Formats: sequence, C-alpha cells, structure tokens
Amino acid sequence: MAITRVGFVGLGIMGRPMARSLIRAGFGLTVYSRSRGPVDEIAAAGARAAGSAAEVARASEVTITMLPDSPDVEAVALGPDGVLEGARRGSYYVDMSTIAPAVARKVAAAGRERGVGCLDAPVSGSDIAAQQGSLSIMVGGEPADFEAVRPVLDAMGKNVVYAGPSGMGETVKLCNQVAGNGTLLAVAEALLLGAKAGADLEVVIQALAGGAARSWMLENLAPRIVRRDLAPGFMVRLAQKDLRHVQELAAETGTPLPGTALVQALYRAVEAHGGGDRGIQAIATALERLAGAEIKA
Amino acid sequence: MAITRVGFVGLGIMGRPMARSLIRAGFGLTVYSRSRGPVDEIAAAGARAAGSAAEVARASEVTITMLPDSPDVEAVALGPDGVLEGARRGSYYVDMSTIAPAVARKVAAAGRERGVGCLDAPVSGSDIAAQQGSLSIMVGGEPADFEAVRPVLDAMGKNVVYAGPSGMGETVKLCNQVAGNGTLLAVAEALLLGAKAGADLEVVIQALAGGAARSWMLENLAPRIVRRDLAPGFMVRLAQKDLRHVQELAAETGTPLPGTALVQALYRAVEAHGGGDRGIQAIATALERLAGAEIKA
Repeated sequence: MAITRVGFVGLGIMGRPMARSLIRAGFGLTVYSRSRGPVDEIAAAGARAAGSAAEVARASEVTITMLPDSPDVEAVALGPDGVLEGARRGSYYVDMSTIAPAVARKVAAAGRERGVGCLDAPVSGSDIAAQQGSLSIMVGGEPADFEAVRPVLDAMGKNVVYAGPSGMGETVKLCNQVAGNGTLLAVAEALLLGAKAGADLEVVIQALAGGAARSWMLENLAPRIVRRDLAPGFMVRLAQKDLRHVQELAAETGTPLPGTALVQALYRAVEAHGGGDRGIQAIATALERLAGAEIKA
Repeated sequence: MAITRVGFVGLGIMGRPMARSLIRAGFGLTVYSRSRGPVDEIAAAGARAAGSAAEVARASEVTITMLPDSPDVEAVALGPDGVLEGARRGSYYVDMSTIAPAVARKVAAAGRERGVGCLDAPVSGSDIAAQQGSLSIMVGGEPADFEAVRPVLDAMGKNVVYAGPSGMGETVKLCNQVAGNGTLLAVAEALLLGAKAGADLEVVIQALAGGAARSWMLENLAPRIVRRDLAPGFMVRLAQKDLRHVQELAAETGTPLPGTALVQALYRAVEAHGGGDRGIQAIATALERLAGAEIKA
C-alpha cells in the first residue's frame, strides 16, 4: 500500500525545501514548526498546518523531523505532544536531523515499543541540494522499514543509501562531516596561499576544479569565499554541533582525529568573533585573521 | 604555422602517459629519459629516441620536461647537454614538473635571453588523468607563448588554464597541492572514524560521494584505502617535495597553513615507516598507527 500522507516537523533552512520537495512529489503533507512564518509559507505551498508534532504524526503514515540537535529530537520525538505520542502503530518516524547516534538508537527503541518503525536518515548536500531534491541521505534502521519509506526519501534525495541498523545513518553522517569540513579547510588554505602569493583566485578555483583537488567544497564554497559571501547555506554553529557529536563518537570509539580538531579550533575562532551564524565558508576568515590578509578575487 | 615536432624529457609515471597522448594526437615526438626502459617503451609506441635533452630540443619546436624537482629541472634545462643548449631561437620550452615558482622564473629568464619562450605548466589529476589525456594544466608565462603552445597542451589536458606570468603556473599548482592533500587527510579521517564506529566503509564512500563531502580524493583514493591498495598513483615522497615548496612559498609570503603542516607531519610518519614510495593514500596508515586500528572494507 503506497504511502500518501506524510508529516514534517522542523521547517528551517533545510526543512522548508525538503517539505516543498514532498509537496511537489504529490504527497499530502501536514507540517508543524515552532515559528509561525515558515508554517504559513509551506501551508501556502499546499501543506496542512498542525498545532503540534503529535497532531502531525496522527495525520501521517510517515512523520519526518528535521531539527537542530539531539535535545530537540528527544523533546519532539519523545516529549509531551511529541511524534511518538501521536504516531499510530504501523506508521513510521524518520528523523533526518544530524544528532548523536546514541540518541537515534534511544528514539528507535522507544518507537519499537509503540509499534512505530524508526529510521535515522540524516542528509548531506546543503541547502542547494535540498532545493533541488538531490540530497544524499544515509539511513539507519530495519531494512524493511527503509524499503517501506524509501519512496518518501526518494522525493528529497537522489543518493539514498542504507547504512545499517539504528544509529548507523547518523554514524555515516558524522563521517561525512569529518570529510566535508576537513575538505573545506583544505580549500580555504589553498585560497589563502593563492591570495598571499598574488594568484588570480578565480583561476585557482578553475584550475583546481579540473584536477585531483576537485571537491564539492571547492566548487560551491570557494566562489563564495572569494566573493566574500558569508551567508549561511550551513551555519558555523551547526557545524560545531556536528563536530561535537563527531568527537563524542571519536572518544567512545578511541579515534584520534587531528585534522578535525584543527577545523573545530578554527570554527571556534570564527565564533569568538561573532560569526557563529555565518556559513561554514567563514572558516576562511579565521585563516585571514591568522595571516593578516584578505582572500578575495 | 602549426607545431608538429614535440620533444619530451622525463618518462616517469606521469611522463609516459603524457608522451603517449602526444603521439596519439599526431605530433612527431622525440624523447629522452635517464633510464633506458621507458625510452624503449615510448619509442616502441612511435617516438624517436634521442641521446640527450639538448638533442631532443634541437629536433623540436616545443620541448617538454616532466621531472621530479627543482634541481632536476635546473640541470636538464640549464646544464650542459640541456634543453636551452639545444633549443632554437623561436622555439618553446614547457616545464610541466612541480617545482619552486622561483626556479620557474629563473629558467624563464634564461630562456628569454636565448630567444626561447618558456612556460611553467604543472599538471593535476594523477596518473589516471594522464592516461586519459584529461589533466588539469595551469600555465605561467607570456600569453602569446601560451597561445602558441596550447594545441600541444590540449593533447594532454582538458582543463588548460592560463594562470599569469612566469612562476604563476607553479604557484597555482602549489595551491592545488594544499587543497588536494588536505582533502585526502579529511577523507582518511572520515574512513578511520567509520572503521572504528563499525560502519560499512563501502557505504560510507557511497553516501559521502553524493553530498557536500564529495571530492576527487574520496572517489579515487578512498576505495584504494579500504582495499588496502597502496600502490602509487602519486608517491608520498613527491607529495612531501611539493609540500616543501608550498611551505617555502608560504614562508616567503607570510602564510600560516596549519592543516598543511599536519598533512606533512602525517606523511613524515608514513616515511618513517618506509612508506615514501607508496601512494599518498598511505596517509591512512599513519592514522591507523595512531588509532591502533585498521581501515578496511
């Protein structure tokens, strides 16, 4: 029986375009978010507005949450008026936030007790991919639940990967954050060297994009760095949150991550100068401060 | 007047496939290399073998060198029986090695005195792109010389970029090395975290390849890391040579590069265990040693 009724809780920078993708794909969407503005916006696009996460879940075969951090997910999933309070037996709950794998496992266990199939399905690709419906989605949970919910995920992503049991979607996402943020630092250092050595930074970007230094970060964030566009696709403070989860997992598993520690230190420098709400490309401003020089085209 | 006669000196891992691309493109090729084996191999593919770099240059409208480091280029370009000894006035000399920008400028000045148009045109893309004729090539020198030699470069590369005056090709290449090697460290740390946290590393690679952590290093070297294939596309000791040039340029220009310094330290750890001739993906073995764990699929 095909899923037709989907719920969405958490209409932030990522949540809004993801909700729009679901409407576009023809799902009947019920939404809830703390702020009224985003709810009105998505309701105007064709969704029904609900008064709580529980109400969303009551109306939906699959309920999705897209929230900032572990405590938000715990509150919205497990708390009063939360998803599991409203969700029917046999329905599904998919958390697409980036949170601690241990919290994802806790939520999944609570869902199992209530007969709700839970998946942790965090995403990668930034706001750009969310708008295009081309997110990378890494999914932890029961394989049968994954297969059941897959058409809903396919409406938002084009690289939907089953990662393993509950929590493993989050684990793979944390690996993604290590690779992505580390790559961004590498790109920013390259631009800094180019700037200090008098290179044309547009040329640097073009030359590097065709070779072994090619990356999403180079193609998408290097142009913003050299244009000094620090508007957030993904915010520094959220990257820091993800990297805290990375280091918690690293501590649990005994994993030294020296490059990631450096990335965190530089993001911390950005935050120290009030840049926590800037896009992660602002890591370049920490290097600029170290170097006493500007990176610009 | 179209260039037809090209010379090539230095038939290593990169030089051989580049020479083959020139033969395939229909250029009449004369080659020289210190070792006899590679010369015989490329001669069998249709090139004429010469007895010295000077002899190559005498036979060629454009002479190319592809050598390990600055001293090699100084010796082969400027020394006895070298390129500039044999090169005719009005011919071109293109050094495609990765060397110090200052040495590239010195060679270009010596060439100018003899009426030889000199370009520094280092490449990116590793042995894979060399074999496919799809290298990224960043070129420093006079714009008119670049335009004259461009058909020869186009036979080896598909992203041929004019970077600025003499030395600027090398400068941009050094930026490329900062971005590329730093990206590789980020990928290796992600795989280490995944391995320690029990993730399926094939899934990690697949999930990351579709999102914001996507990179050439992830697509090309992460699979080799998890297969424990450390054969060189690009050797650790040559990466270390490039990063020495990076840090020289960084010192000249007052550029702090903390991530790059970490990459160098980890490559040094690989070298300390006898891995200098391994591929740069062996940086993962330094992390494995730190963690006391293996990264494998």
